Amino acid sequence: MKEYCVLTIYPSGKKIIVRKGTDILSGLIKGNIFISSSCGGKGICGRCKVKILKGEFYSEPTGKITNEEKEKNIYLACRTSVLGNLEIEILPETIIPQKVEEKVFEKGEEFERERYNIKEFFNFSPIVKKIFLRLPKPDFNDTLSDYERLIRSLRKIDNKKNFTIDLHNLRKLPNILRNSFWEITVSYVDKKEINEIINIEPGDTSKKNYGIAVDVGTTTISASLVDLNKGEILKTEITFNRQASFGDDIISRIVFAEKKDGLEKLHHVVTETINELILNLCESCDISINDITSVIISGNMTMVHLLLKINPSFLRKEPYIPSANIFPVFKSADVGIRINPNGILGIVPGGYPYVGGDITSGIIVSNIYKEENLTLFVDIGTNGEIVVGNKDFLVCCSASAGPCFEGSGVKNGVRAVKGAIQKVKIENGNVYFETIGNVEPIGICGSGYIELLSELCKNGIIDRSGIFIGENERIIEDEGMKEFVVAVKNNGEKIVITQADIDNLIRAKGAIYSAMSTILKTLEMKFEDIKKFYIAGGFGSHINIEKAIEIGLLPDLPVERFKFLGNTSLLGAEGYLLSDEFRNLSEEIIKKLTYIDLSRSPIYMEEYLKALFIPHTDFLKKE
Amino acid sequence: MKEYCVLTIYPSGKKIIVRKGTDILSGLIKGNIFISSSCGGKGICGRCKVKILKGEFYSEPTGKITNEEKEKNIYLACRTSVLGNLEIEILPETIIPQKVEEKVFEKGEEFERERYNIKEFFNFSPIVKKIFLRLPKPDFNDTLSDYERLIRSLRKIDNKKNFTIDLHNLRKLPNILRNSFWEITVSYVDKKEINEIINIEPGDTSKKNYGIAVDVGTTTISASLVDLNKGEILKTEITFNRQASFGDDIISRIVFAEKKDGLEKLHHVVTETINELILNLCESCDISINDITSVIISGNMTMVHLLLKINPSFLRKEPYIPSANIFPVFKSADVGIRINPNGILGIVPGGYPYVGGDITSGIIVSNIYKEENLTLFVDIGTNGEIVVGNKDFLVCCSASAGPCFEGSGVKNGVRAVKGAIQKVKIENGNVYFETIGNVEPIGICGSGYIELLSELCKNGIIDRSGIFIGENERIIEDEGMKEFVVAVKNNGEKIVITQADIDNLIRAKGAIYSAMSTILKTLEMKFEDIKKFYIAGGFGSHINIEKAIEIGLLPDLPVERFKFLGNTSLLGAEGYLLSDEFRNLSEEIIKKLTYIDLSRSPIYMEEYLKALFIPHTDFLKKE
Repeated sequence: MKEYCVLTIYPSGKKIIVRKGTDILSGLIKGNIFISSSCGGKGICGRCKVKILKGEFYSEPTGKITNEEKEKNIYLACRTSVLGNLEIEILPETIIPQKVEEKVFEKGEEFERERYNIKEFFNFSPIVKKIFLRLPKPDFNDTLSDYERLIRSLRKIDNKKNFTIDLHNLRKLPNILRNSFWEITVSYVDKKEINEIINIEPGDTSKKNYGIAVDVGTTTISASLVDLNKGEILKTEITFNRQASFGDDIISRIVFAEKKDGLEKLHHVVTETINELILNLCESCDISINDITSVIISGNMTMVHLLLKINPSFLRKEPYIPSANIFPVFKSADVGIRINPNGILGIVPGGYPYVGGDITSGIIVSNIYKEENLTLFVDIGTNGEIVVGNKDFLVCCSASAGPCFEGSGVKNGVRAVKGAIQKVKIENGNVYFETIGNVEPIGICGSGYIELLSELCKNGIIDRSGIFIGENERIIEDEGMKEFVVAVKNNGEKIVITQADIDNLIRAKGAIYSAMSTILKTLEMKFEDIKKFYIAGGFGSHINIEKAIEIGLLPDLPVERFKFLGNTSLLGAEGYLLSDEFRNLSEEIIKKLTYIDLSRSPIYMEEYLKALFIPHTDFLKKE
Repeated sequence: MKEYCVLTIYPSGKKIIVRKGTDILSGLIKGNIFISSSCGGKGICGRCKVKILKGEFYSEPTGKITNEEKEKNIYLACRTSVLGNLEIEILPETIIPQKVEEKVFEKGEEFERERYNIKEFFNFSPIVKKIFLRLPKPDFNDTLSDYERLIRSLRKIDNKKNFTIDLHNLRKLPNILRNSFWEITVSYVDKKEINEIINIEPGDTSKKNYGIAVDVGTTTISASLVDLNKGEILKTEITFNRQASFGDDIISRIVFAEKKDGLEKLHHVVTETINELILNLCESCDISINDITSVIISGNMTMVHLLLKINPSFLRKEPYIPSANIFPVFKSADVGIRINPNGILGIVPGGYPYVGGDITSGIIVSNIYKEENLTLFVDIGTNGEIVVGNKDFLVCCSASAGPCFEGSGVKNGVRAVKGAIQKVKIENGNVYFETIGNVEPIGICGSGYIELLSELCKNGIIDRSGIFIGENERIIEDEGMKEFVVAVKNNGEKIVITQADIDNLIRAKGAIYSAMSTILKTLEMKFEDIKKFYIAGGFGSHINIEKAIEIGLLPDLPVERFKFLGNTSLLGAEGYLLSDEFRNLSEEIIKKLTYIDLSRSPIYMEEYLKALFIPHTDFLKKE
């Protein structure tokens, strides 16, 4: 007989029924509570700490818990089994935020929103159109059937393709037509070969036609609410991808998906995250979820597979094969995304297992495919994807950077939100910093880490391999790990960068730099040949180019060659929503794109080792 | 509070729980027991007789029950309310047979099966194809995605159209491919603009690809099991349409569909009838229902609407508008037809509200659209549809004949089954007859009625308007109605033709003849101009042309101009299953076809009245 226990979670007091012997992390996930767990529950990362208040449990011995923590009854959730009714407390630092209070892309505030207007580059033809029709009433001289009558009027407006309809809508048609006195609104989706009617409503509802563009990143998910009639972006929101509870990077997510019910769980949390974003966007813009007719997803292949609940296993097994590159248009309800019940879900096509639709988006939005001169495009996220090329060719590769530039996987990392330390200067042992919004610091964001790393090195606090050297009163030790105090909050809590953080950051910047140098060496080209250097990614628009060059994240090129593009994946999803030229181009782009597999490149490992210095050994040679 | 009663039905002993006050007919339908009710429960036709054995009830007074019947406790089910637990007995003659033991279309047995071979006239390209593929296993030199890999191989075999896939099948793809060592069988449906993959199975199942062609008639339903790889018809079965419990003709069915839950009920019984036919066909040919990938429906517009559960109401209201003429391909499961869960259901397109896909089928199968000379095509069923034309034009009309030629709605009517009286001769007061199979007579079929009517008239037993005249020992009276004894069974039961039967038959033949004469007069043509005269319909192949001319069902033309085509609606459904040329042609035909609405024709009523004689008044004038 199976025994069950009650797991009570404080501070909320929420109770979860779990089977006896379940580990606490699994119990929390079952209860829809998501805490950090970079390794996905393998006991390696040591992030899923919880405080046990009362009850029976067994916890495996682990080196990840300090004696101090043990005294406070802190244990790793993934290594602790529930043996009886148990009460635990969630530690605030482990909670994956449900919403990032970041204001990006609000009209006029951001560079890329100002710059990139899809309608400047492409025709306007949204993926779902909503058309108000006044059909001529049938009489003995005009006895066309209801459906053919509807099509006759529709084709007067849109004559490019044939139309089709499903049984559900055909069943509704005769009554709706007559009850609405032959005035109806038809929604139809552009499915390449054919237009499919997805909804018929009485009267004129054509003014309310909205879409959602989503960038599904490994660490963060961004979504825009788009007016499909006007082609305008109404609002964008960002949140963390709650899949982080199942591992920080793509590979650990795939490994988790291979476990029993793993794919189902990953699918569930990502769809629920997107559903909440959609709900928030609708509420804040006072738009009914029923008027959302379409959702477009741009993301890496793994994220797309998990969202669609397609086995991603073969993406990590040689020879790395995705289920599809170009996906058909699905019903959003079949994917588990809640918009209008007849709404659709489309996917920006992706070229390769590790260069997905997010990069197809980036290639189009950056215009690299039209450039005369050699151009480099890099999207810095949890993965760093690089495209080198111009109007004649496009070569790409992908490197795993980890989520530290997105404020994850580093001790006091935060996204570029209010209170994030974004600028740092160290002089005479004093640390000067600036936070976003000039408020009390809450943590360090990606751009802050870059400046910090540069300053630590310049001031001789760390050496070129990133190791703390010399004496400094700001270097303290916590649980046997050296860390540098950057700031102290009003409540006395310290904001630090640890030795592990530094190693993490160096590996991340090294992975991206060496990927860029490998692709260029393979093409027998040099960084100097690059005339334009585009940086995409959530954190991109905040960084200081010079500092990024100093730490060796970016190559040493004249500053004016660099350009920040912001979240081009999201911009691409918006473009895919709004233009059929964009949609057709996205399929052409992936046919044009060639791929270099770094893991099989003879050059890459050498380049990577050279890049594990500040800035890198090439630079040292130059000096 | 609602009270419920138990209605017990003998001879089966089945018990049905009904609400107190329910009429017995509704109770029987609720319990899936279908008895004749031509008028659909309005108390008009007097056919739904049941015997009450025991219990509380209230029965409205009706002239439809004789005193003899009253003594036997026989009542009309539709006029009798259940007031307490009630036991009743079903009378054998009211039961709608579940299966017609008629052998038609078995290989070589029937004229039309011999004659019409779809592959002679059209290319062979079944609506669902099942292809075995050995995909090249991916390696680092061939890293195409699973889906694009599949399409690449498919397009080597079928390069006419693009392909698409649904989420369900895409989700299955990665595992099936690898578990089956890259050997799979793909089923896809030809959807005009695109081929849609509907199923993926491991290994080679391509040999098992079957379809079902269905002719859904108002009175009978026929279905063929078709081997889609070979284009061969394996078996055909016929059954009565159980919708007869809700009314004999199209209009009473539509009226019933307008009642609460009426459409749902009509939809349910017709889908269940088809499901049983499919099951029987599969069982008798030892084929798994899972290997049935497609179903094609050919039928009149009302039958198609009821099958699809689309409101048919506007088919009977001016200006008579169907929901659609050309239907998209549906999922069979959405319609409620049980074949392979991924199977499809297609509909032969229909030109007009009363000239549906059954007639489109007939036009193609008869080749009238290719004829040089003027040709007339008539499909004699519950409705009689007529097409006049040749390669240059096609004009059609429809007349309501009633089901008497199909052996329904006449006292001792049966279909053309073993034991049916099909030939009759009256000489010197003696009746000589021949039954199908030369066995004991069980009733009279359509062709038998035609000969009988002719003989009764020739022998002066009825006059030219069909009234019994003179003295004859075979004319007896039952419940105040005169009837003529045709035969006596071994058990002493009489097989008769009643005055009401004769009136019915004259109205039926008159409706068809006058429809033909009206269409010709409208075109300013004469019967003599018709060089070929095609007769379609279940009963068509058994009738004696000369006798049919004698009673005025057919015009007085040389016998060699007439040709029987059998059930062209079913043959059309088979053609639609097997050939894309056929499918494309069917859409062209309905665009070419023009319609004469008899109810609005100034000529028709006059022609009809003239045709209510034997043979008709035109003929009398000629004499």
